[in-house]
Amino acid sequence: MKIKRDMKIEIMAVGSELLTPYFQDTNSLYLTERFNDLGLEVSYKTIVSDDWDDLVLCIRQALARADIVVGIGGLGPTRDDRTREALASVLKRKLIFKKEILQKIRKRFERRGLSMPAVNKKQAYVIKGGKPLENRKGTAPGLWLDTGSEIVILLPGPPHELKPMFDSSVWPDLQRFRKKHACRRVLKITGLTESKIETLISDLYPQEPHIRLTTLAYPGQIEIHITAHSEESQDKAEKSVEILEKNLLDRLKENVFSMRGEELEEVVGRLLRLHQKTLAAAESCTGGFLGHRLTNVPGSSDYFLQSMVVYSNETKSYQLGVSSTLIEKHGAVSPQVATAMAAGIRQKARSSFGLAITGIAGPTGGTPEKPVGLVYSALAWDNGTEVVKNNFIGNREMIKFQSAQKALDMIRRHLLAKAKS
Amino acid sequence: MKIKRDMKIEIMAVGSELLTPYFQDTNSLYLTERFNDLGLEVSYKTIVSDDWDDLVLCIRQALARADIVVGIGGLGPTRDDRTREALASVLKRKLIFKKEILQKIRKRFERRGLSMPAVNKKQAYVIKGGKPLENRKGTAPGLWLDTGSEIVILLPGPPHELKPMFDSSVWPDLQRFRKKHACRRVLKITGLTESKIETLISDLYPQEPHIRLTTLAYPGQIEIHITAHSEESQDKAEKSVEILEKNLLDRLKENVFSMRGEELEEVVGRLLRLHQKTLAAAESCTGGFLGHRLTNVPGSSDYFLQSMVVYSNETKSYQLGVSSTLIEKHGAVSPQVATAMAAGIRQKARSSFGLAITGIAGPTGGTPEKPVGLVYSALAWDNGTEVVKNNFIGNREMIKFQSAQKALDMIRRHLLAKAKS
Repeated sequence: MKIKRDMKIEIMAVGSELLTPYFQDTNSLYLTERFNDLGLEVSYKTIVSDDWDDLVLCIRQALARADIVVGIGGLGPTRDDRTREALASVLKRKLIFKKEILQKIRKRFERRGLSMPAVNKKQAYVIKGGKPLENRKGTAPGLWLDTGSEIVILLPGPPHELKPMFDSSVWPDLQRFRKKHACRRVLKITGLTESKIETLISDLYPQEPHIRLTTLAYPGQIEIHITAHSEESQDKAEKSVEILEKNLLDRLKENVFSMRGEELEEVVGRLLRLHQKTLAAAESCTGGFLGHRLTNVPGSSDYFLQSMVVYSNETKSYQLGVSSTLIEKHGAVSPQVATAMAAGIRQKARSSFGLAITGIAGPTGGTPEKPVGLVYSALAWDNGTEVVKNNFIGNREMIKFQSAQKALDMIRRHLLAKAKS
Repeated sequence: MKIKRDMKIEIMAVGSELLTPYFQDTNSLYLTERFNDLGLEVSYKTIVSDDWDDLVLCIRQALARADIVVGIGGLGPTRDDRTREALASVLKRKLIFKKEILQKIRKRFERRGLSMPAVNKKQAYVIKGGKPLENRKGTAPGLWLDTGSEIVILLPGPPHELKPMFDSSVWPDLQRFRKKHACRRVLKITGLTESKIETLISDLYPQEPHIRLTTLAYPGQIEIHITAHSEESQDKAEKSVEILEKNLLDRLKENVFSMRGEELEEVVGRLLRLHQKTLAAAESCTGGFLGHRLTNVPGSSDYFLQSMVVYSNETKSYQLGVSSTLIEKHGAVSPQVATAMAAGIRQKARSSFGLAITGIAGPTGGTPEKPVGLVYSALAWDNGTEVVKNNFIGNREMIKFQSAQKALDMIRRHLLAKAKS
């Protein structure tokens, strides 16, 4: 196939289950990322059922409008799997039986002590002129076919089969369609609102078409995705990203907590390890979510000693030594109690730092003075404490996330400041 | 439009961001569910960019192959939002300015103390012959258009705008296309493997086309989705579901923990409340995830007193009174230590039940004798204890989920058995 200036790419996922309310195609996100790495954009995504007429129609329309068509799924051994046959029918090409493919499939079963069911035989047929793609993780071979006017790529549906097949057998052959070299980077930010970030960086939005900024905002975390392209070299693309990244960092400073995709709990873990410090937590409204995030990091037992989820007032005083007079006077959701909790858990766990969260996650339990979303986070260290008040918005889950995010960010900033001083 | 026996439905999401690796269309899952409720299947889903030619092409092809086309997105005020204009172009129909729509949009801004930007004026144009659909949550009105041969529905992209508009303005008008009455039900199961469930229920798979079973399996939880249709009445559809549901329950018994979509932590909460019992937890490898799940249920402070995340051996003995000799002799991941942790937290928290988890979540820390995935869960009550050993598979996150699931299921089964005896 001739390489055009403006290549149209279509990703077509085949399978009736993808047209139910239960399943979603996620393979196309991965494939889009890889095409973007070649400087190519995806123009259309289609999802079609196993129905023969629908499948034939969609393949025909895809071939008419796109230069590269990637079909996903429908390569299995069952009667519903007919992507191969439908493509052959549209292209009016024969399916040719390949003995060596059948042998590979049979061996796959034999290695697991099974004999190959007869239905799998159909997976050994290849469209005339096409190149079968080996599947190291399953029975369904893929296909690469250059019709002269289009490239058609067929891949199996399960992501753990699709990804290695794409990377090892499709990626090298796609290089000749490479339009540009691409470099991507993601900055993760916390402690600033989306609109504040927009104000700070608005003049940095690239005017050149070869570099692009995308902002994804979640409550408690903003991500800035940078993608740069260069028609000349990978180095040039990387250079463009680095310049923009540096400018963004100059504006956003220590609000950027990660530049390599790391989560906030990983960054905090790295800093604690670096400073050889330990941490313990006392959680009220997060109910264990802070500990859960901290322990999502492998090896976190090196610095994370314990978390105490104190849901009732009694446990707060009984377990953490927070005086019941203090709770009565200020309420469980107060800066005083948050600070006492942080100091209490630090002492109890004999850790370098104590981190505490107390608040109202909702949907009930709010009052005019202490509404849902009011959260105090406190940090205690060897010779000081700090407490922060927040009014988070969103549902229970979102308030829990923002609360944990804030607490993690407090210790991150504390350790950063310490390293500087 | 005439109602056909075999209506083809296409959902088309418009927006270049949906063709990046970062965003996915989720609206179509909701719309599919609602069409299924009418006994209608979705035949195609398309995602297309804001590019004018691509958009026009995809609309043209959708109108050619489908009877009902639902377009999502591209109704905003910016230059990129051109779904309305592209549809008008394909249909060769005029866009007519509607003063009353503009007034509504302007009032929306004024209520928030803002003046309407000039760009929003384009949202007040309606395709000739179409019916504008009011947007109570945003500025972009939707559209219902009967061309004589197709129904075209345009909806705004943000889910919180799309859903109420669909429910209030589209759903009533779709009733005339209702093919069948539908009833859906989901059974959630834990404590059985997928293959065990298949063996138990294989002969219950409905042979009739009007009722359908779909199984979704996750490690630690299996869901059986039942959908029944009746051309006659809602009652008949519900009756079909109830019969199948009863048969499934007879086979799967108390392994089914929920039949109305409830999560396991909600079921446990309901049972604890019913029996007026309280719970405290001691978590090692789950790191707070059990407490997090328990406290995801609003009002959980009524029965959930506290969770102690004891990550180090020292905290296990220091905080929970687990003897260090016991830990030395059997190791922290052992049935003896799990039991001692459950009894320890129960005593410490003065709760009716103590639940404990100790295990190896990986990816490191495993040995040949105690591999990654080995998890002990223990339950302690006023006059007894129970401990269970599991070898879970999957990554760290999956092992944490299965561990919490097992612990929650232990207390659920205990309370169920108690209610029976």
